[in-house]
Parts: sequence; structure tokens; C-alpha cells
Amino acid sequence: MAYPNEKLSEEKVFKDPVHRYVHVRDKVIWDLIGTSEFQRLRRIRQLGTTYLTFHGAEHSRFNHSLGVYEIVRRIIDDVFQDREQWNNDERLLCLCAALLHDLGHGPFSHSFEKVFHLDHEQFTQAIIMGKTEVNEVLRKVSEDFPKKVAEVIAKTYKSKLVVSLISSQIDADRMDYLQRDAYYTGVSYGHFDMERILRVMRPREDQVVIKESGMHAVEDYIMSRYQMYWQVYFHPVTRSAEVILTKILHRAKELHLDHYPFKQQPVHFYSIFEDKVSVEEYLKLDESVVLFYFQAWQEEEDKILSDLCRRFLNRKLFQYIEFNPNSQMKMWMELTQLFKKAGIDPEYYLVVDSSSDLPYDFYRPGEEEERLPIHLLIPNGELKELSRQSEIVESISGKKRTDHKLYFPQDLIDQLSSKRKVKEQIRSLLQRDKS
Amino acid sequence: MAYPNEKLSEEKVFKDPVHRYVHVRDKVIWDLIGTSEFQRLRRIRQLGTTYLTFHGAEHSRFNHSLGVYEIVRRIIDDVFQDREQWNNDERLLCLCAALLHDLGHGPFSHSFEKVFHLDHEQFTQAIIMGKTEVNEVLRKVSEDFPKKVAEVIAKTYKSKLVVSLISSQIDADRMDYLQRDAYYTGVSYGHFDMERILRVMRPREDQVVIKESGMHAVEDYIMSRYQMYWQVYFHPVTRSAEVILTKILHRAKELHLDHYPFKQQPVHFYSIFEDKVSVEEYLKLDESVVLFYFQAWQEEEDKILSDLCRRFLNRKLFQYIEFNPNSQMKMWMELTQLFKKAGIDPEYYLVVDSSSDLPYDFYRPGEEEERLPIHLLIPNGELKELSRQSEIVESISGKKRTDHKLYFPQDLIDQLSSKRKVKEQIRSLLQRDKS
Amino acid sequence: MAYPNEKLSEEKVFKDPVHRYVHVRDKVIWDLIGTSEFQRLRRIRQLGTTYLTFHGAEHSRFNHSLGVYEIVRRIIDDVFQDREQWNNDERLLCLCAALLHDLGHGPFSHSFEKVFHLDHEQFTQAIIMGKTEVNEVLRKVSEDFPKKVAEVIAKTYKSKLVVSLISSQIDADRMDYLQRDAYYTGVSYGHFDMERILRVMRPREDQVVIKESGMHAVEDYIMSRYQMYWQVYFHPVTRSAEVILTKILHRAKELHLDHYPFKQQPVHFYSIFEDKVSVEEYLKLDESVVLFYFQAWQEEEDKILSDLCRRFLNRKLFQYIEFNPNSQMKMWMELTQLFKKAGIDPEYYLVVDSSSDLPYDFYRPGEEEERLPIHLLIPNGELKELSRQSEIVESISGKKRTDHKLYFPQDLIDQLSSKRKVKEQIRSLLQRDKS
Amino acid sequence: MAYPNEKLSEEKVFKDPVHRYVHVRDKVIWDLIGTSEFQRLRRIRQLGTTYLTFHGAEHSRFNHSLGVYEIVRRIIDDVFQDREQWNNDERLLCLCAALLHDLGHGPFSHSFEKVFHLDHEQFTQAIIMGKTEVNEVLRKVSEDFPKKVAEVIAKTYKSKLVVSLISSQIDADRMDYLQRDAYYTGVSYGHFDMERILRVMRPREDQVVIKESGMHAVEDYIMSRYQMYWQVYFHPVTRSAEVILTKILHRAKELHLDHYPFKQQPVHFYSIFEDKVSVEEYLKLDESVVLFYFQAWQEEEDKILSDLCRRFLNRKLFQYIEFNPNSQMKMWMELTQLFKKAGIDPEYYLVVDSSSDLPYDFYRPGEEEERLPIHLLIPNGELKELSRQSEIVESISGKKRTDHKLYFPQDLIDQLSSKRKVKEQIRSLLQRDKS
Repeated sequence: MAYPNEKLSEEKVFKDPVHRYVHVRDKVIWDLIGTSEFQRLRRIRQLGTTYLTFHGAEHSRFNHSLGVYEIVRRIIDDVFQDREQWNNDERLLCLCAALLHDLGHGPFSHSFEKVFHLDHEQFTQAIIMGKTEVNEVLRKVSEDFPKKVAEVIAKTYKSKLVVSLISSQIDADRMDYLQRDAYYTGVSYGHFDMERILRVMRPREDQVVIKESGMHAVEDYIMSRYQMYWQVYFHPVTRSAEVILTKILHRAKELHLDHYPFKQQPVHFYSIFEDKVSVEEYLKLDESVVLFYFQAWQEEEDKILSDLCRRFLNRKLFQYIEFNPNSQMKMWMELTQLFKKAGIDPEYYLVVDSSSDLPYDFYRPGEEEERLPIHLLIPNGELKELSRQSEIVESISGKKRTDHKLYFPQDLIDQLSSKRKVKEQIRSLLQRDKS
Repeated sequence: MAYPNEKLSEEKVFKDPVHRYVHVRDKVIWDLIGTSEFQRLRRIRQLGTTYLTFHGAEHSRFNHSLGVYEIVRRIIDDVFQDREQWNNDERLLCLCAALLHDLGHGPFSHSFEKVFHLDHEQFTQAIIMGKTEVNEVLRKVSEDFPKKVAEVIAKTYKSKLVVSLISSQIDADRMDYLQRDAYYTGVSYGHFDMERILRVMRPREDQVVIKESGMHAVEDYIMSRYQMYWQVYFHPVTRSAEVILTKILHRAKELHLDHYPFKQQPVHFYSIFEDKVSVEEYLKLDESVVLFYFQAWQEEEDKILSDLCRRFLNRKLFQYIEFNPNSQMKMWMELTQLFKKAGIDPEYYLVVDSSSDLPYDFYRPGEEEERLPIHLLIPNGELKELSRQSEIVESISGKKRTDHKLYFPQDLIDQLSSKRKVKEQIRSLLQRDKS
Repeated sequence: MAYPNEKLSEEKVFKDPVHRYVHVRDKVIWDLIGTSEFQRLRRIRQLGTTYLTFHGAEHSRFNHSLGVYEIVRRIIDDVFQDREQWNNDERLLCLCAALLHDLGHGPFSHSFEKVFHLDHEQFTQAIIMGKTEVNEVLRKVSEDFPKKVAEVIAKTYKSKLVVSLISSQIDADRMDYLQRDAYYTGVSYGHFDMERILRVMRPREDQVVIKESGMHAVEDYIMSRYQMYWQVYFHPVTRSAEVILTKILHRAKELHLDHYPFKQQPVHFYSIFEDKVSVEEYLKLDESVVLFYFQAWQEEEDKILSDLCRRFLNRKLFQYIEFNPNSQMKMWMELTQLFKKAGIDPEYYLVVDSSSDLPYDFYRPGEEEERLPIHLLIPNGELKELSRQSEIVESISGKKRTDHKLYFPQDLIDQLSSKRKVKEQIRSLLQRDKS
Repeated sequence: MAYPNEKLSEEKVFKDPVHRYVHVRDKVIWDLIGTSEFQRLRRIRQLGTTYLTFHGAEHSRFNHSLGVYEIVRRIIDDVFQDREQWNNDERLLCLCAALLHDLGHGPFSHSFEKVFHLDHEQFTQAIIMGKTEVNEVLRKVSEDFPKKVAEVIAKTYKSKLVVSLISSQIDADRMDYLQRDAYYTGVSYGHFDMERILRVMRPREDQVVIKESGMHAVEDYIMSRYQMYWQVYFHPVTRSAEVILTKILHRAKELHLDHYPFKQQPVHFYSIFEDKVSVEEYLKLDESVVLFYFQAWQEEEDKILSDLCRRFLNRKLFQYIEFNPNSQMKMWMELTQLFKKAGIDPEYYLVVDSSSDLPYDFYRPGEEEERLPIHLLIPNGELKELSRQSEIVESISGKKRTDHKLYFPQDLIDQLSSKRKVKEQIRSLLQRDKS
């Protein structure tokens, strides 16, 4: 049988806590899972620094990628297969894109991307198109298959229906991570009736739509997402660890560019510090490597670098207060001066971090980040935009919520015994706004 | 308030997927959790190489240690507190021993211990008694407190009741790991009614006993343990990864002693390879470090080392057949010779691995590894050994089950194209016994 | 020991699927559970006709009442006990009121109350104050204890804090039924983190308040409630069964007042039909009795009564369309005339049913049904009304949602073969508005 | 399309707490569910008097019957469909037999069958073959279809494979009830990996077999069953309620045959008391009817009947002691005499109840109740009997466990104030053996 249609002689299953089992029958999928680029996702946590807040959140992107694949497989094989408007020739493409959609994630991606202006989506493309094992498997399907997979992930593929399975406001990616992250953290948010949502999904020319009878399950999904963002993903303690991580990378880069004599030279980071990283070098970076350096750097002479590494590894995080960028800029300036007086470098130790999320949005054509809204399929065949049918969704639709926090090391401030006045001034500024 | 009794101003809670919440009120416990030695357990997986079989099993020993602490806390605070035969002065000791019982585990402990003849229990002692942050916290309780904690973990502490909370055939350690490992792997074994078992535990002078009315819950626990051992802990694929890991360590040590010119010198392993490891050096070893080296060693000239590292990281594991050491020694000899002829070093590529477990045992005084049996408390006050009351337990009591497998790289054999005859001979020997 | 403080020699536990275990130590509670009036709640389903939609919903009010008791017990014993502003002398009163709050529910209460203008809350009072086993137990506590319990349930008790545990917008009643009804129906709504909510509840002079850190758990609870109302409690199929039930009672009463010669005389209903029901007679009514009559009445000569009974027992329910009372009154009139022409009595076979719910409300003093809003306790000690802090809650706050449906027997219409024109007219009116 | 193959235009789903959803596409199945005989199962509890011990166990046989159907449907549609040795023409037959297998259960079947020598399996046959709605639906499939369905349930159908899906030592019936009863009672037994068992089931000419790789899941299932029997089904409190129920039926029959002037004549029981019950009369008996009579009979003059009814409805059950029929017959005789002296009729108030179960059995040809053992399918195609491969199963295989208890009303004995000596003698006999 031709490779694209080749089936394993016996179905392989992965025991999965969220979907019970992940089923693989296609040889192509099995081969992709076996590539070194895909196995590398085992060494990259799904939720970055979240494990320092929720100790259960130690699961990897490997875990999640299998889950997204399984959801897409079920949508296609159990729901779409024989329906009009669905072209089953796209099946393998969808499965591959689902499996590989996170392939370009680096260690602690959020922080790395911020500091080094990297973009994991570009790396995903590059790995799929580059000289990699993944590319080799995909090319066996057909010469232009890697490109198609890359396009689906880049959302530029011609069939919007195919794209919407992987990236939309109700895609397999979100449905997997909400449930998975809830499972591993142990929080009670993140539950919604995915079984029902899958059953009411219908293929339409340019998107997946939801039968109206499933509206309440979708509402529940959107509320779950909202809660997960604010309860888990934007948890202030997680962000404290992220702030420190970011500052470590910052410091190390700066020292490297300054030719600082590291005891443990940041060999794996050279190209990234110098802004000329290749796919090959990028693939060598995983969280083991990062943690290896952080451990070593605890013993560097540079006080800032070693202190920040110790903080990260031993979870001596920064404290925080709410921060209002409109009304408190002056306070921040004052604090910056006081920190300098106290000998605590504010660039590394006085950090504002902001998180914001838009729980659901209707369609705003032409805006920077267009989001395709969720459409309900009414029994008469019409489509209606979700927020017009659901009061709950309407009520949060288009409302971006932002949260700012100011992070600082309480312990260093408490130790300022020889600078009692500065210490008191800092404390009083930080206290005033602590609730 | 004196340090041993000091309470946090507000109780701290950790969200835990298994116990819902882990509660900490004691300052001593909170301080221990914050030590670098305890935080290091976040970088050591609870189940070693199991994540290569069950992808969900990525949880750390940090995770489990909090769980054991929580179970002991609940036994004491909710069940024992005001009962006769319980001395609440032992409370803090029990909590500390529970929290710290796995402190000495190294990366992939099982394999490390085997190859280097280390013993994690000795390291636990050494870390508790040594110049460490943990020791510092414990000494603040009292000068002899570290020693007491170490004794409880070593099972030499004077109160057998205290010891039995942490190590016995139905201790907090086992109750936590069975449930936790089941949760993260997603298997349906590992469930039993811990709530009920906790409620029927009673303190007796030299052990925890179980009210007879809880017998069926205990039976269920013992069956869960049995299933977890054979379905999860001894899974042949996990053992395949372990075999490879063991052989990597083996090879690296050998090369090091032979002054092989590593591109990435095994600095972190020097002392361990040379049998003179200190607590300080041991504490620097975690799974990030090990994986860092394995990644680097994929590019060493030494074919065996680089091949094994690639296999481990990319999950190209060994295949296996059942092996009967009584009847198949001759076959093994033949295979060893054939492997040599084929140019595949049998020392690294033809490995017998054995697993065995004793699901429950009654008391056998004087035997090498004495196990305290579980006792049921009959309404009239008498104690009866579990296997005399339970038919199910009786039926598996004292029966050790052993399983041997022979591991080998199918892919290398398949590639022996220039040595067709040897290849066929090997295949036929390996096939014959494949079921 | 005096009766109010008397403890059972050994704690009794009930295995409960929702709370794992319900714990009883107080003799008073144990005695109340043993009364015939409380045991009668086993014969009254928690969710009336819902089992005809969700077959799992066969659980009784006995089940739920134990659950509410357990939640209140945990709030008091685990959270309030030693806090300021909590008077532990109220403990037993709270437990009794929690346990007994639904005591006056009759069979299929919703329908009975509607048809016969009964009020289960008044019967609860009457049972507690009357010549009953429950009253006898309560009077052993003190002469005025029954009255106090009745007052708490009637929300007239002097301590508003005590009242708010049992009836408020976040009380033990709601927390139990949401989880319990979700469990038995199997829907995925109804989950929220009750453990967390319990931990952040604090007693204040006139109400239970919630620490601000628990706000998101409360949001989740309110959303769960919203979903349960529209997905489960107001399910159109359940309401169809309720419509039929109501009409059966209606018809039987009418026939009785007309001296219709029942084969099975409605002995148990006499007093209720004649508007002079006593506590004693009321207590004899349970769902077994009602179903007994319905079964017998399938064989009455009266076509309407027997048809409706057969429909109810064999789940041959009415169909429905959306109905807009503002714009569709004319259509309804027309249909009424057409039904008459067709020989189908519209009084029994063409029924509008309306459901409405207010998911959360802030305080509207003076309004008919004042609802105490939920207050958050800010770290500085202030109280803030929930909808001012939570965007999600704000968005649905005070918004009453109402749904009207028109019910009719499709099968009877389909059988109108001899009246083809009428049939077509009816069909076309009903079709037009069917989505 | 012909009726046997007719599909519903849209699949119907039932939300089910155990299997998430029950799916119905076949018109025949949908029609069967709508029959009055099948709907009647809503009024018969799955676990008889168990709800008096585990208050959650209020679920009906309707609930369970849908579950068994769904399991068989999944085995056929997801696993067997295209396999050799499976004839898909048997599909509808299997589904119908699964759905209807419990159709003949009466109210509290266990007790009714015991007292009146009825057999629910014969009634199932009779309902399927008789003048019923179920028969009418089945006959639309083909003239001999009702007979075939009846044969499958009676285990006399020619294809043993078909029979084994519904009744064997690992059939859909057992797999559903273990999980379902565990769910509703809330106990932690009853869990096993059904998903895995379904995946490894294979059709063989005369039975369903299990691939060897699923052996541990089957072990777990057998242990679950063992625990459910002894923890739930044979719970001594449940049996106490059953003893009372049995004695009520006994007494009522006796009174009826003696022409006792009932206030509430046992009309529904006449034919059953007189041993000439017809299908039509049998179908009118459900638990509502039984409870209706019990309630009424609380007010009969006959002391025994009214007392027993009050006990049952208000859960004033009998106490019990262990009873050894070999060594304690003499004690029983003595007690019988003492009860008579005390004026307590021993026929109704001193009852021995025995329960026994055989957890698993290998094949014993020729024995009274032959049980087909479970066979494992070895990779080489051979079949091996389970207990030869599994140590755990071997250890409990063929071992029948029996338990005897002696039930009596402690309260009546305690009230024997005027007969102090008799009372003391009774007490001392009953005490002596109370543990």
C-alpha cells in the first residue's frame, strides 16, 4: 500500500490520562512520533514555570501534542468522515498538522521568545521544512506535503476548514490543553463536555461550526478557558518565576556580550545570544540543558546571575503588588531610585509584568489579530455568531482583561540593615499598595 | 512560640491532584520544603524511565514527597490525635520523616544504584545529617532531631509505631505512590479506598493496625499494588529503557577509567565513577544534568556510547523475549557468540533483566528482609495477621513472582546484511522463543 | 451527658458518592434520620420528572438532605468552630435545619404545588411543629427547639448568619444539589471547587462571607448553577412530563369533584382535592402512592385521564415549539379553536409552560423576593458585593431569563385522519414556528 | 429500508453517568425502549433493598439495561464488526437480547423469587413471547425473531458466541452492573479498565475470548466483582432489609390464604399468592405498587404484618450475629424456644440468611451449573483457560465462599421488661456470639 495510506498491522495505543487512549493506525503518524524532533518535546514542559505554583504541572508538550492529534483524529474519523463538505483527502494533513503544531517550542518558550525575540511558530515551520527527520517522513508522503503541513500550522493553507481544526477559538489545541492542564494541576476548572462538542461539530466550507444544540457546552468551554487563564496560566507566582527566568537569560546574554569569563561557558546559547540561531542549534536546546546551566551558574562570580539562578532553582521567588501603570508610574520611578540607593539593581529586581486575555471575540475585520468567531448552525441551515445567541458569551465578548503586577525580592529588602532609611522608604511604598 | 510548635500565620495549601490539597501549618515543614535539597526533588522523576512507556508519568519525587507528608499528617491529626497509645510528641518527627523519606534519591535511581552500588537510603541519611539546609532547619528543632528523623527513615528508631507509619506493608509511602502513579499514568489500577483505610487505622505500641471492618479496603489496596507492579513498574518497555540507561552509565565509566577523550567530559560523574562521591557532589546530580550529558554524548566518537545515548533520548529501545534462566542458558551462550561474530558487543546489546515482587508477606523472623505483616484489630481487642483473615491475601501471601527478559536491538540485527548467515542464526534463536 | 450534646459511642458514616462520606456523631442527628418522616424522603425523588430525560436522575431527597447536613457540618466543624463572630451554641440548630430543610416536600412537588396551591415550606414547618416523630426528637433538645429549627428554615430566625448557611445565594443547599444532580444525571456541568469555597467561608454578624481569594471559585459555582438550570432543571423534555403530570392531577380533581365513578378511588387525594389536607394525610403521600394511582388510572373509562396516565408512565410525552407570549397569542387562540374542532381538549393538550431563572442578583431592598447578595471579604476587612468585583458575575447579574414553550401531542394530531383539513391547519401553525 | 436495518434519521443519545453516552441508531432498539414493558423497568430498582444501606443505590433496571445494550453495541460496532468468525447478521439479535435481558425482573426480585418460587428469567421469556408491545416490535423484524431473542437470553441459542456476549463469566451484563453499582453506591470497588477489555475481546466460534495482553485487566475485573459481592451485594444490612421484606410477603400470603380481613386487600398479589400469576398481572407489579401496600399495611390489625411493614419503610431493621450452621444449631433451637416463651414469633423474627458466591470457576463439565471459563488468546492462536495463566485468579478459582447470619429484632428483646429472665437468656445467647 502507498505510504500515505499505509496502516500499522496492529493499532498502537498510548494510555492517556485525559483521553483514556490515543489511537494510532497510520504509519506516517507512527513514524513522526518516532523522530528525534518530536521526542524532544518530552524535554519541554507544557506549562513552563507553572510547576513552581502547581506542583503537578510537570507534563510535557509531547503529552499535549498526542492529545491534539487524538482530538482531530476523533473529529475526522467519528464525526466528519462521511459528511458533505468534508474532503477526506485532507485527513492525513490534518493529523500531521495537529501532531506537529507545537514542534518549534523551545524550553520555557514564553520567556525565551520575549528575551530573544524568537517565534516558536517560525521554528515549527523551519523544522518541518528543514533537514530533519520529521521532514524526511513527511516527504515520503509527497514532495509538497511538508509545505502543506507548514501552511496549515501557519494558517495560510487554502482550506480554512482544515486550518480551523487546529487554530480557531474552539480548536483541538485549546480543547486538549484546557483539560490536560486542569488534570495535571488538579484544579477543578477546565472541565467541559468535549464529547458533546465533538458530536455537534460540522464541517462547513471555511470553518468548523457547532450545531446550535451544543451551545451550552460551548459556553461552558469558554468559561473554562476564562477560569484557566486567570486561575492557572496567569497565576502571579508562576509569573514571578517567569520574571526571574527572563532576567537570568537577560543577564547571561549581557555578560556574554561583555566577554564575562563564565566558569560554565554558555556554549548552547552562543548563537541565540548573538542572534544567529540555526534550526540545528535550536533543536539542541531543551529544558534539561537550560536547567543544567542554571545549576552551574549558581556558582558564577557575578552576583546577579548566581542569585537569580539560585532563586529559580530553589524557588525563592519575588513578591508582588498590584500595579496600575496609569496612576503609579511615579511610585515606580521613586522605587527605581531607592533600589539604586540600596544597591539592588532595579533592572533585574524591580519588574513590572503584565498579562492580558481576551476570552472570546466576535469578528473584527481588518484588525491586527483577526479572530474567527465561533458560528452556530441553526436547524434551518443558517449560521449565527455565538455571542448573538448566548447571553453569557455576549457578556464577556470582546472584553480584554489586563493585569499588571510589580515584582521585587522582599528578602533582599528585609536584609538592608545598614540602610535603614532607604529600607523604610521602600517598604512604605510597597506596603501602601499591598492589599 | 518555640520553633517546633511554631505555626504559620495562615495555613499554606498546595493544590494536589491526588489529595486535592496538601495542608501546611507547621513552620518547620514549610522551611524544609523551601530548602534547596528538597526543591532538587523537582528535578528527579518519581518513576524513572516509565515516561517512555506511559507518557503521563512525568511527575517528580517532589510531588510524591508532599503526598506522603499529607497522608501522615491526616493520620495523625484526624485519626490518632487523641487516642490512647499515641504520643503526640512524635507528631513533628513523623511529618518530617514522611516529607524527607526520599531525599536521597538520585536521578534514575534504580539504574544508578545498580551500576554504581549506591544506596539512596544512605544518601538520605547523609543529607539529613550533613552540612545542608535541611540539617540546619532540623537542628533548629533540637540538636538530636536530625538524628531522630534519620533513624525513623532508617527504620532503627525506637518507636516501631512511628517507623511503621513511613515504612511497612501498608504505609503512607505506598498509599501515596500507588494512587499518584495511577493518576499520572492514567491506568485504572491503583485505586483503593484510602479514606476508609485512614479511618480504620489505630495506633498500637509497635505498629499501626487496621480495624477488622476495614479488611476489604486493605485487600483492595494489596491487589492494587500487585497490579501496579506488573502493569506499570515492571512494564517491559520501561525496563528496556532502563537497560539502555544502565549500559550508558556502564560505558561512560569504562571509557572514563580508560582515559577516553570525551568531547563532553563527564565532570559531574568523576567522583561517582571513581567511587568517592560526597554528599555535595551527589546533590548536584539530577535528571537535567544526566540528560544534558546524554545529549552531548550522542556526538562522541565512541560508537557504543553515542548509539546508546541516541537510543535513550529518541526512544529507539531494545526488543525483548521471555527468558528462562533455567532452560535457556545455552541459547544465551550461543547468542553471545553470534553477536560477537556479528560485531555487536553482547555486553551492551544482549542483556537479561529480571524483576520480582512479593505482593504481601507474613512474618518470617530471622529472614534477610523481615517484613512486618499487617495486623487486623478484632472487636475484642485481639490482633490477627491479615492473611489469616483474608482468603484473597492468603492466596498470594509469600509468593514471590519473578520475570526474566532478554533484551536486544532488533534494528541492528536487521541491518546485518553482509553477514546473512549469522543474522539468520540470531533471528532463528530469538524467534523460536518469541511467543 | 445532656441530650443536645450526646455523642454516639462510635461515629456513624454513610457512604456518599458526592461527599465520599457523611459523618454523624451527634445523637440528635442520628435520631432524626431514623424518624419515619425523614425516611419518607427516600420515596420522593430529588428531581421530580427529570429521570424521564436523564435516566440517572433517580435519586431521592433523602440523599440530598444528608448532603446538605454534611456540608453545614463541615463548614462549622472544620472552618467556623474557633472563629470570632461564630457562636458554637448554634451548631446543633444549624445541623438540624440543614438536615430537615426539605422535609415538607411532597411527591413531584413542583407540580403538586402548582395544581393544589400547596407550599412545601409550610409543610416543613408543620411537620416540625406538629405531632410527629421529628418533633418528638427536637423537643428532647429543648421545648423551644422545634420552633427555632422551623424559624431557620423559614428564614425568620434572629441570626441571619445561621439562616444564610441554609438559604442564601451560596448556601449548603445549592452547593449540594448542583453537585449531586450533576453526578446522578452524568452531565459535566455542576462542577466547582467546593473544597476551596468551604475553606474561604467566614462568619460575619449577619451572613456568611467569602474571602476575596476565593472569588474565582464562586464565579465558577455561579456559572455551574446557570448551566444546570438551563441544561438540566428546565430541560424541555422534563417540562413536558411535568405538564402531563400536572394535567393528570387536574383531571383527577375535576372528576372527583364531579363525582366521577373511579374504578380506583383517589382515596389518598381526597383531602387534597377538597383543599383540607392535614399533616398526617400529607405524610402518606409519596411517589409510590402517586405512581400506584397512575398505573390504576390507565384503565379508567375517562379517556383523558387514562391517556395522560399512560403517557406519563410509558413516556409518550408531548412535543413542543418555542412560544412567544407577546407575538403569538393569536396563534395560540387559533390553535385552541382548531384543537376543539379536532376533538382534542386544549385544556389538557395544548399547554404553555414557562421557566425563568435569575442566576445571581445584587441587593434590591424592598422588592418582593429580596435576595441577599454574596459578599467578598477584602484583606483589609471590608466587604464588597460580588458583582462589583467579578466581571463575569456582573455580566449576568440581575438578568432574569425566561423561556416559554407550547406543548402538544404530535401523535394525536398525526392520527386525525378523518379531519384532514383541521389536521393540516394545526400542523402548519405548529410547523411554522418549529425551528 | 427494511425494518431490521432501519436507522433513525438522527442518532439518539442518552446521557449516562457510567458510559458518558448511550447511542441508539437502530429503529428497532428505539422502539423497544419506548414499550411499556421496558419503561416499567424504571420502577424496579437495580439493587433491591441496597438503598437502605447505601443511600445512593436508588437506580433502576432501566438504567442498567441501557448500559448492557451500549456495551454490546460497542463490542460489535467498534471491535467485532469486520473480524473473521463474526457474523454481523447476529448484530441486531445481540443488541435486542442485551437490552431486554432483565425484562422479567419483578419488584425486589430476589425476595419475590424466594418466597413465591418465581423465576425472572421465565418471565423475561414469557414477556418476549407473549401478547406484549415488546413482542409486537420484535415480530416486525421477523416472525421467529422473538423466539431467537428469548433463546439468547435463555442461553439455548445455537451460537454460543452470541450467548456469551450476554451471559458468561465476563459478559456485558456483569461489566455494566459492577461499574454502575459502584458509581451509584459511591464505593471505590468496581473499577476496572473496561475500555481495555473491550479492545482485547475477540470473537471465536463458541465464545468471546480475551487476548492474552488483556489478562491483567481481566484479573482486575474479577477482583472488582469479588469485592462488590462481599462489600455491597451481600452487605449484612441489605440482607436484614431483605429478610424483613421476605417475611412481609410471607405473612401477607398466609393471611390471605386464611381469609384475613385486610383493610387494604392485596388485590395485586392475589394471583401470585394463589400461584397462578399471568404475564399481564405480573407486569402490573412494580416497586411503587409494593411500597403502596406496605404503607397501607402499616395500619392492619395483624401485629406481625404491620410491625414488619413499619420496619421496612422506616428502616428499623433486624440486628445480626454470625451464625455457624454446623456448630450452632443447638443454640438456634434454644433461641427458638426462648422467642416463643417471650411471645415473639420466631418464624418471623429469628431468621438465618445465607449468601454465597463463587468468584470465578474453571470448567467442570457435567456439574449442575456449568460455567464457561474465560479463555485467553495466546499470540500463537492457542486458547488457554484464565486460571492457568493468572496466579491471582488461580488462587480464588473454584472457591465458593459462604456466609451465614442470624437476624433478630434487638428492640423487641430489649422491651421484654416483664419477662426479665427470658430476656437475659436470649441476650446471653445472642451476645456470646457477637464479636
